[in-house]
Amino acid sequence: MKIELICTGDEVLTGATVNTNFSHISQALGDAGLEVIWGTTVGDDRETLLAAFQLASKRADAVIVNGGLGPTVDDLSQEIAAKAAGVELVFDETWFKRMEEYFHKRSRVMPPSNRKQAMLPAGSECIDNPIGTACGFAVDIGKARFFFTPGVPREMKRMLAEQVIPRLLQRSGRPGASILKRFHSFGIGESRADGMLADVEAMAEDGSCKLGFRAHYPQLETKLNVRGRDMDEVRRRLAPVEAEVRKRLGNFVVAEDDAKLEGVILDAMLAGGHTLAVAEMFTGGALAARIAPLPGAEKVFQRGVVARSLEQLRDAVAMSADSAAAEVSPAFAGQIATTLRESARTTHALAVLIELDEGEDRIEFGGTICVAIANAAGTTTRRARMLGGREWIRLGAVELGLDCLRRQLQGLPVEERIDFEKV
Amino acid sequence: MKIELICTGDEVLTGATVNTNFSHISQALGDAGLEVIWGTTVGDDRETLLAAFQLASKRADAVIVNGGLGPTVDDLSQEIAAKAAGVELVFDETWFKRMEEYFHKRSRVMPPSNRKQAMLPAGSECIDNPIGTACGFAVDIGKARFFFTPGVPREMKRMLAEQVIPRLLQRSGRPGASILKRFHSFGIGESRADGMLADVEAMAEDGSCKLGFRAHYPQLETKLNVRGRDMDEVRRRLAPVEAEVRKRLGNFVVAEDDAKLEGVILDAMLAGGHTLAVAEMFTGGALAARIAPLPGAEKVFQRGVVARSLEQLRDAVAMSADSAAAEVSPAFAGQIATTLRESARTTHALAVLIELDEGEDRIEFGGTICVAIANAAGTTTRRARMLGGREWIRLGAVELGLDCLRRQLQGLPVEERIDFEKV
Repeated sequence: MKIELICTGDEVLTGATVNTNFSHISQALGDAGLEVIWGTTVGDDRETLLAAFQLASKRADAVIVNGGLGPTVDDLSQEIAAKAAGVELVFDETWFKRMEEYFHKRSRVMPPSNRKQAMLPAGSECIDNPIGTACGFAVDIGKARFFFTPGVPREMKRMLAEQVIPRLLQRSGRPGASILKRFHSFGIGESRADGMLADVEAMAEDGSCKLGFRAHYPQLETKLNVRGRDMDEVRRRLAPVEAEVRKRLGNFVVAEDDAKLEGVILDAMLAGGHTLAVAEMFTGGALAARIAPLPGAEKVFQRGVVARSLEQLRDAVAMSADSAAAEVSPAFAGQIATTLRESARTTHALAVLIELDEGEDRIEFGGTICVAIANAAGTTTRRARMLGGREWIRLGAVELGLDCLRRQLQGLPVEERIDFEKV
Repeated sequence: MKIELICTGDEVLTGATVNTNFSHISQALGDAGLEVIWGTTVGDDRETLLAAFQLASKRADAVIVNGGLGPTVDDLSQEIAAKAAGVELVFDETWFKRMEEYFHKRSRVMPPSNRKQAMLPAGSECIDNPIGTACGFAVDIGKARFFFTPGVPREMKRMLAEQVIPRLLQRSGRPGASILKRFHSFGIGESRADGMLADVEAMAEDGSCKLGFRAHYPQLETKLNVRGRDMDEVRRRLAPVEAEVRKRLGNFVVAEDDAKLEGVILDAMLAGGHTLAVAEMFTGGALAARIAPLPGAEKVFQRGVVARSLEQLRDAVAMSADSAAAEVSPAFAGQIATTLRESARTTHALAVLIELDEGEDRIEFGGTICVAIANAAGTTTRRARMLGGREWIRLGAVELGLDCLRRQLQGLPVEERIDFEKV
């Protein structure tokens, strides 16, 4: 099945917005075993939109259009879809009621301009958007089935996963089942992972397993896409490959599939009846922000303190000024963690201290990171030096701090060299 | 002049790489007063590349192709360019020598595969790449002039700015200039903004001003794109429209152009010699994370405390337990801010308390937010109720807290109803 993707909107065409919707949709289709063969980007302009729809309708079997379903005058997708399909726009009473409810629940009056969102091409299939007022729809244009999705990322993502991909899989004719198995690791670069795992594809018969990577610093995602006649066959094919990848990536695997590092930590702490306090500097609240808002975190996350100077951090955890020299060292990080654990009355405390190099931000800009974890048994510390600019170091330090906590909770060595580290 | 952009490569087509080259090129052209009217993304595939070149050659006056100039077998741009132009590939002795020098300077031997990079379509103009081995080139295909650029971002950016844009400006018969003016607001939904501003386009002559919006919750971006013969004319046309938009959006404008809310706050605090401490709950460090890592924030941001329970928060700011009933109220938020301001010895303290509804996360899930700002003059408070799910409330609360601080620093009313609020 030939699938095309049309992204609409002046903001993506002019480059004001980086087109992350395109990459999300294309990846999600790829993960489902479907393939995008052509991408088009056009602005909020009747003539080019029509031309884009017509061209795709001749080349493709299925087309996903993203954007242009909003209530404003520059949202033109329904109008041009109707024109390209050679049908009228008709008022969808059901969707209009849904929108009225949506506004009512928020104690707002629906502006008259929103009526436009309930006008759909005659004969089109309404595609539900449970979290917004933009109604998705599917309609035939030429030989292709067009799926119209909203530009708001969270609405698009949900509609794509729950509504569009199942319809595409059904239409694809190609029978079969597939699983996408994902490993999230921290500390192994893409090139090294590629070298470590290059031969695992061959473990599954008939080229039915495809290995892929997605590097999104500081984590690396390793993906196994396995296809087969049915789910039994797929699971049978996946099992040995999955086990081998898990073994080779070893301690560096922080989570699998939809799980995340912070969720793995939270689950381990909930299971152990633990509680947590966190002290941070240049990471500026980012460590706390990964854990504190999670459902269930109110039982675990007790306190976070952030300060930009070592002296303020010492004051914030109520440590006496003459107890230790304030410096970015494993020893001082350990004392911060120990004091914080006592004052917040938690079972665990994590401290992540950073000393940045002097001078302007640049690609060789570096920083020294000291991590300490205090629990009833004492303190565990880790020191690392990283290069790559301020933001690179900040992101790396957040991940290193969380990963040290994961390793400590899982009984794994906290000291294990990572690829981002400069020895 | 009609300009198209063709991005090539499996990594962008599959979404493995987010296509930031597209947004960079389109923005850089826009800044130069040139306009991209069509974007195409295709993979490393002979058939689709040829089709993409042929389609663009019929529609456009100029086409920028990005990627596919490397030494590997999947780099096909020269080969397909020659085919589309109906000419042979010829060996460019001069560029080959440049490549040999390039490797020699780095004490490396050039691999034989790099010879491919010196094969250019007959009759094409070589475009210099002073920092890489991929030779840019320009060639006529159909009625359009095609400019081929490397996929490596830093090589592309330099070639675009120094070589391609000057050639495009020279070829564009139409002299012209443009400005993109941007307003970032918090508290006005896209539909309402559209209603408030629909008539401002008409203030500029000849349809030379285009109004657009980009909603990225919780902020809304309002854009004015104004064109004219030269920058003087553009500025003259923009001035009255810009002033009117600023007036109508009023207190809700948090920043303009490249500025951000957190930067506006930081600048105001630096200018006033102020310092800041922040107390947060369910926002879990996200408030601190917006300000603390900014360059210069070490002078302003002194301390952040995060706790998930009111009692822990009271302890964390060292408030005595019998001083007030712990509850999400403006009064208690005010006491938290006042106490924190004293213990952190700052001029300002911001507290953002949240009480979430009970039960499962859902789209009608709500929360009550109490914001307090303490400074030498006393405390200012704000209470708001929002619906929209846990993450929606969390993001809204962060923005509301920061925006209250901005308003307080700018002497604007902190109490002003926002569209996301349920009264």
